[in-house]
Amino acid sequence: MIDGKIQPYALTLDKFLDHAAKWSPDVEVVTARDTGRSDRIGYAGLRTRSLKISHVLSGLGVATGDRVATLAWNSQSHVEAWYGIMGLGAVCLTLNPRLTEAQLAAMVIQSEARILIASADLAPLAQRVASRVSAIGRVLLVDVTDAPAKAGGKPAVEALEPLLADAPTDAIWGRFAETAASGLCFTSGTTGAPKGVTYTHRSSYLHTLRLLQADVMRISSTDTILAAVPMFHANAWGLPFAAAAAGARLVLPGRHLDGASLATLINTEAVTIAVGIGTVWLGVVEHLETHGGETPSLERIVVGGAPLAPALMERIERRLGVIVQTSWGMTELSPLGTCAPPADPGRSAQMSGRPAIGVDLQLADAAGQALPEQRGVEGHLHVRGSAVIDRYFGDPEPATNADGWFNTGDLARIDADGNLIITGRAKDLIKSGGEWINPAEIEAVISAHPSVSLAAVIGRLDPKWGERPILVVQFCAGQSVSDDDLLSALRGRVAPWWIPDAIIRLDPIPLAPTGKIDKMRLRVDYGGC
Amino acid sequence: MIDGKIQPYALTLDKFLDHAAKWSPDVEVVTARDTGRSDRIGYAGLRTRSLKISHVLSGLGVATGDRVATLAWNSQSHVEAWYGIMGLGAVCLTLNPRLTEAQLAAMVIQSEARILIASADLAPLAQRVASRVSAIGRVLLVDVTDAPAKAGGKPAVEALEPLLADAPTDAIWGRFAETAASGLCFTSGTTGAPKGVTYTHRSSYLHTLRLLQADVMRISSTDTILAAVPMFHANAWGLPFAAAAAGARLVLPGRHLDGASLATLINTEAVTIAVGIGTVWLGVVEHLETHGGETPSLERIVVGGAPLAPALMERIERRLGVIVQTSWGMTELSPLGTCAPPADPGRSAQMSGRPAIGVDLQLADAAGQALPEQRGVEGHLHVRGSAVIDRYFGDPEPATNADGWFNTGDLARIDADGNLIITGRAKDLIKSGGEWINPAEIEAVISAHPSVSLAAVIGRLDPKWGERPILVVQFCAGQSVSDDDLLSALRGRVAPWWIPDAIIRLDPIPLAPTGKIDKMRLRVDYGGC
Repeated sequence: MIDGKIQPYALTLDKFLDHAAKWSPDVEVVTARDTGRSDRIGYAGLRTRSLKISHVLSGLGVATGDRVATLAWNSQSHVEAWYGIMGLGAVCLTLNPRLTEAQLAAMVIQSEARILIASADLAPLAQRVASRVSAIGRVLLVDVTDAPAKAGGKPAVEALEPLLADAPTDAIWGRFAETAASGLCFTSGTTGAPKGVTYTHRSSYLHTLRLLQADVMRISSTDTILAAVPMFHANAWGLPFAAAAAGARLVLPGRHLDGASLATLINTEAVTIAVGIGTVWLGVVEHLETHGGETPSLERIVVGGAPLAPALMERIERRLGVIVQTSWGMTELSPLGTCAPPADPGRSAQMSGRPAIGVDLQLADAAGQALPEQRGVEGHLHVRGSAVIDRYFGDPEPATNADGWFNTGDLARIDADGNLIITGRAKDLIKSGGEWINPAEIEAVISAHPSVSLAAVIGRLDPKWGERPILVVQFCAGQSVSDDDLLSALRGRVAPWWIPDAIIRLDPIPLAPTGKIDKMRLRVDYGGC
Repeated sequence: MIDGKIQPYALTLDKFLDHAAKWSPDVEVVTARDTGRSDRIGYAGLRTRSLKISHVLSGLGVATGDRVATLAWNSQSHVEAWYGIMGLGAVCLTLNPRLTEAQLAAMVIQSEARILIASADLAPLAQRVASRVSAIGRVLLVDVTDAPAKAGGKPAVEALEPLLADAPTDAIWGRFAETAASGLCFTSGTTGAPKGVTYTHRSSYLHTLRLLQADVMRISSTDTILAAVPMFHANAWGLPFAAAAAGARLVLPGRHLDGASLATLINTEAVTIAVGIGTVWLGVVEHLETHGGETPSLERIVVGGAPLAPALMERIERRLGVIVQTSWGMTELSPLGTCAPPADPGRSAQMSGRPAIGVDLQLADAAGQALPEQRGVEGHLHVRGSAVIDRYFGDPEPATNADGWFNTGDLARIDADGNLIITGRAKDLIKSGGEWINPAEIEAVISAHPSVSLAAVIGRLDPKWGERPILVVQFCAGQSVSDDDLLSALRGRVAPWWIPDAIIRLDPIPLAPTGKIDKMRLRVDYGGC
């Protein structure tokens, strides 16, 4: 018996841009520039430029499996670099410009990258990083056409654009297995040392198909997507892949994520779906509240990164006239784990949605054993799936337990309808007098106060109780509340001994490079550790 | 350097039901019964029963790669059989009850299946088929609890239900590679001898993700899907997979696809999306036009199988208050190739939508060479993709050309926006006086006449011209039109020598087992060949 066969078809990321270039050649990728105007290119043109980058890199000796680093904002050039690197079968190491040069150099050294592609305005940082890494032979600057002054020999710093002029454009993509690595991203390090997560073509391809689903981001060819999540972190949630796969317009904000810039961009480009963390949209709301204006084209905002305060969600929905989709994910998940459907009438800020097919969740005890009851109880959140980490870069040990589950470090409940509710970080828990206090529950109450912009609860070393909670708060512009008023909101909502011992007023609260509240820094500054 | 890894995660179809059972345990699969009432079961219960079937089959000696045949309508039992067979790694051969026992026996013999699972009301046909196939050792009847009278020894005919009672329910699914075969379906044979198409877990998994996309069927967990496409043909367009993957309700009409039955089912089950060929929805429209009534829950109808007449599309949209999504596909494509997005304001009956990521189209000349210009010209439609045939069952030769393209046999244009317009079947073309006549263009004009229900143009042997077109027409109930009136609609719309030489009035026009007009039969009866 000769069995039939289906065509071979490798799930590689270059196919997204090939598809977009063929079927949506004129659909634009738009980049906001510092000048106030925007650059734009169709997918067909973007593919041609990305292919040229592949040829240039290939000419510089980059081969399948080699790492190439990028240090850049969300821009057309960065998208071209992604596809140019990944299409060749090389691995794109995305570097966060808000980290220190020492942190970045450590990542580059670990990756063994020899080429660094950087935004022109990040050239000084790129050079300082490169000067610490002997393996880096070349820094290629994007978004600059003049060749910059060479940095005296090594590493060679030059503009990429002139190299592209005569580069060939023939198709050389996809000559590798779908399980080949495509990306390398170090975790944000808000709770520990950065660890490298390797993405593969297959995992990011399958993750992309998830974004297109009706119950996830529901990205359509008629949408214009604003990617306000950085491309230097967790694949920008896969948006540069998903927009191409769907033939949707993609709007990239460059380095400016302030409320005024984003509000302008949303309106000039008629954005329909905007994706980013809650604090970014708070900025847009505050800008509109101060300066007036509406965002009529905007239909939905997808938020993630940290649980959203209910008051903030309501404020965003009301002021911007949008539906907010909450989500949950992490670098190790590519990053999307769960997402609230676009039109869930029962949605709430606490709920992070449900897992789409390809993601499975399990609640476990502290020892990693599955809880006998999975609904309505709190547990340590474990995850398995087609785009979930199995092993960190450079680590010989698996990142999963014996049953193949990855422990996210989050605490969570799953309600009767299967909605995920993140209740805290296991590492953020405060142990006071031998009992656990969950900062997230206190933060949720404080954040609901209309005058509070951001709130964080951390543990402070205490000679008698081990740890005691203290509250760090940032008020909305020009507003303040007395300690008594703030704490009275907690009475009856949390146990009396959960009430913080002190209140620290900061303006602003320090944020980690990913935009989350930097609790590590707060613990150092105020936690006595 | 130790590279990082993503978790292994095989794309196998059993995962859909596992996911549905865990996250949507009470969401129902509903089956319409002859009694007028409906049976219903949640995904959790359906998974348990499917696992029992796997254990029963395993106990009967079915191993990975073995074929198991089904001869059944769209029902819960058939879905259970699918998952029971496929979860085990066996291959489900779906048989069309509207074929002859000789045709069915030939398919079963070719497949080497040893077990046949059949709807109880198809037991006589199943026995007749089995009696022609010595390899069939057992016929298992579903939707019957009493053991039927044994058919005198061989093959053993018995009810499946009693065997399930004591079957174990432990998880034994997914113990095979994702490239393992999952299904085997013979093409409908309206234009030639049936050929077997083998589906794999991977191809059907990826095809399923396509259905969930925003620009394809946009299936959401809040939807109720009516699968009016038969499970015995081309995976019922993947709906039993997609509904489970999305956690959507699935409504199965059993064997009754008449307008009255479907209208009732749509309303009692509050169907939101209905999928089937155009003639099925014409039946619903005619029923409502005659008997009154509305279908308020119904939002969308996805049609395929054959290009839709513009007048019929408009009539369906207006009478049912729905959006009609046109599509194009074929058995060899798993089957969906293109689909019009749910809310395309420029939609029209002629357009079959655009290819989603994972499907690529190419227009070629008769020799298979790609046309230099792909837009705005007619060509032979070739396709490539993750769920497209590479080789027919039992055929040592590839079904693709040297560049990996499968020739669909369809003629098509692609418009400036990338919409596919099927212009005819290459084999249906009529050669008259050395020039080609395209029946599809004539049919489109005739079908637009308000009194015409169905129209087909075929070639009749002609001593002078080689072939001449003749028109076969079925009028709406109680209506008729003179030959002159009918043909006058063509004048000025098609070339004068394309006007059919004769009109044959049939009531009804014979349909092939898939519901398409049976042009092979028409050619035999009226074509002089």
